[in-house]
Amino acid sequence: MTVGVDVGGTKTAVALVGLDGVVHDERRNPTAGSAEDGLALVAKLIAEWQGEFDVLGVGLATPGLVRGGVLESAANLSGWAGVAVGPLLADLTGRPVLVDNDGRAAAWGEFLHGAAVPGSSDLLCLTLGTGLGGGLVLQGRPYRGGGLAGEVGHMVLVPDGRLCGCGACGCWERYVSGSALVEEAHGLGMRAAPGRALDGRSVVAAARQGDPAASTAVHNVARSLGEGLAVVVTLLDPQTVVLAGGLSAAGDLLLPEARRALAETVIGGRTRHLPPLRTAALGSRAGVVGAAALAREAA
Amino acid sequence: MTVGVDVGGTKTAVALVGLDGVVHDERRNPTAGSAEDGLALVAKLIAEWQGEFDVLGVGLATPGLVRGGVLESAANLSGWAGVAVGPLLADLTGRPVLVDNDGRAAAWGEFLHGAAVPGSSDLLCLTLGTGLGGGLVLQGRPYRGGGLAGEVGHMVLVPDGRLCGCGACGCWERYVSGSALVEEAHGLGMRAAPGRALDGRSVVAAARQGDPAASTAVHNVARSLGEGLAVVVTLLDPQTVVLAGGLSAAGDLLLPEARRALAETVIGGRTRHLPPLRTAALGSRAGVVGAAALAREAA
Repeated sequence: MTVGVDVGGTKTAVALVGLDGVVHDERRNPTAGSAEDGLALVAKLIAEWQGEFDVLGVGLATPGLVRGGVLESAANLSGWAGVAVGPLLADLTGRPVLVDNDGRAAAWGEFLHGAAVPGSSDLLCLTLGTGLGGGLVLQGRPYRGGGLAGEVGHMVLVPDGRLCGCGACGCWERYVSGSALVEEAHGLGMRAAPGRALDGRSVVAAARQGDPAASTAVHNVARSLGEGLAVVVTLLDPQTVVLAGGLSAAGDLLLPEARRALAETVIGGRTRHLPPLRTAALGSRAGVVGAAALAREAA
Repeated sequence: MTVGVDVGGTKTAVALVGLDGVVHDERRNPTAGSAEDGLALVAKLIAEWQGEFDVLGVGLATPGLVRGGVLESAANLSGWAGVAVGPLLADLTGRPVLVDNDGRAAAWGEFLHGAAVPGSSDLLCLTLGTGLGGGLVLQGRPYRGGGLAGEVGHMVLVPDGRLCGCGACGCWERYVSGSALVEEAHGLGMRAAPGRALDGRSVVAAARQGDPAASTAVHNVARSLGEGLAVVVTLLDPQTVVLAGGLSAAGDLLLPEARRALAETVIGGRTRHLPPLRTAALGSRAGVVGAAALAREAA
């Protein structure tokens, strides 16, 4: 058994996972304001399991930039940035810990135990939530490049396009994400119900009920998803593309139009074999399952 | 020894290469109008070497799309398309033949015997000639994905941008290539000398002599080179970027501005480690040397 930890902006999932990817136990708690508090809670859960099982190692998945076990920066986890989360959790648990980016962990989980085409050796996973993250498996292994590979959301695909929180203009995330969906819907005249905020989920729900503004917003985001995928497919021709993250629950609304836009934009799109676009088979567990699998590298 | 063959739109290079990447003999001939004629000449050269050396295998690099030894399509080699070039050359030489894309061969040559950062495991090679091709080495091996990976020139980076020969609008090649350089220079008022056509080489030569239109054209192409590289680096964070192809001879003019544009556009560009941008160490031999190295996969 290994343990996977997936630290999100709001919730932290901790799971005990077998080598076959099966989740034997899982806990979800609100993410603590500081890494010290958050990891102490994680260590407490692991200690409970250690009484009963042999925990070989721990995989810790976080958003942002991870280098040498240190979470260097993470936009939505300010109390965690700069902390040597890997060594800290290893101290607390007495187990080897591997820290990696959450998008890469989700990609690895889906590759090993999820939606990958059987027999394939590469996969792109997009995590579509408030923002747009991702991860790559290439040549059968998690791909890191110089360490920062997979920041798909910040590929500039529209020169002089919408201003992004990262400081650049025209990042893919500004067109494909929960925030982008809300912005599109708002721009098309959709308003939140009294006392509620407009969020990605409510736009999707309205689109399912036939609201024209919401439907157009979903359509526009799906087009941008397919057009950006065309760039990635032209470069990498991955054998599977997986959509994970909260908004992947709207995969049935997004993927058909995204497929059309991909086929229309990618070179040779009318005749070539295109990778299947699938929703994550592991759902919201892709990150923890992948993190647990990554832990085998450290164990 | 293995033999590398690099079939270009105008010339075909054939080289006898040691396992250390050293070229022992090399011939360049005009590319024949048909695959049958071209490969007969290649086989004749190889037969001469086979009298003296043990040729373990042949690597055949071609532009366009290669699948299962068949050159399915190639824009500048109409007489070669649809021919099973791999089996044909294997019949003619009695040696195992591996066929691959020329950009991928050049990347593999530079990775093994050229400009790769020592100890690195991934590399992007751009072949900057009349058009823009490329190839990837990822996790220490030539990367093919579903078979078409590396078509960097046809990433659509400018929505509704310049029309490309492939039918799409805004392909990177339309902003970064010899043709794009000529188009920029012409648009800025540069004209060819009497009796001569404006080509990439003449624009570069004029820029070296301080011609303002040519200098601005080179500047614009270099900016587009860096901005497109920012997309690739955001996604893949490769440890080395190599510029090969005829226009790489202008690397000293192009690369400083391309580096600036890359650092300004890529996420975290002011603080992160950026891959070095280098010109091909093997020069115009990157393709043949890489093809010969690929032949070891077949031998």
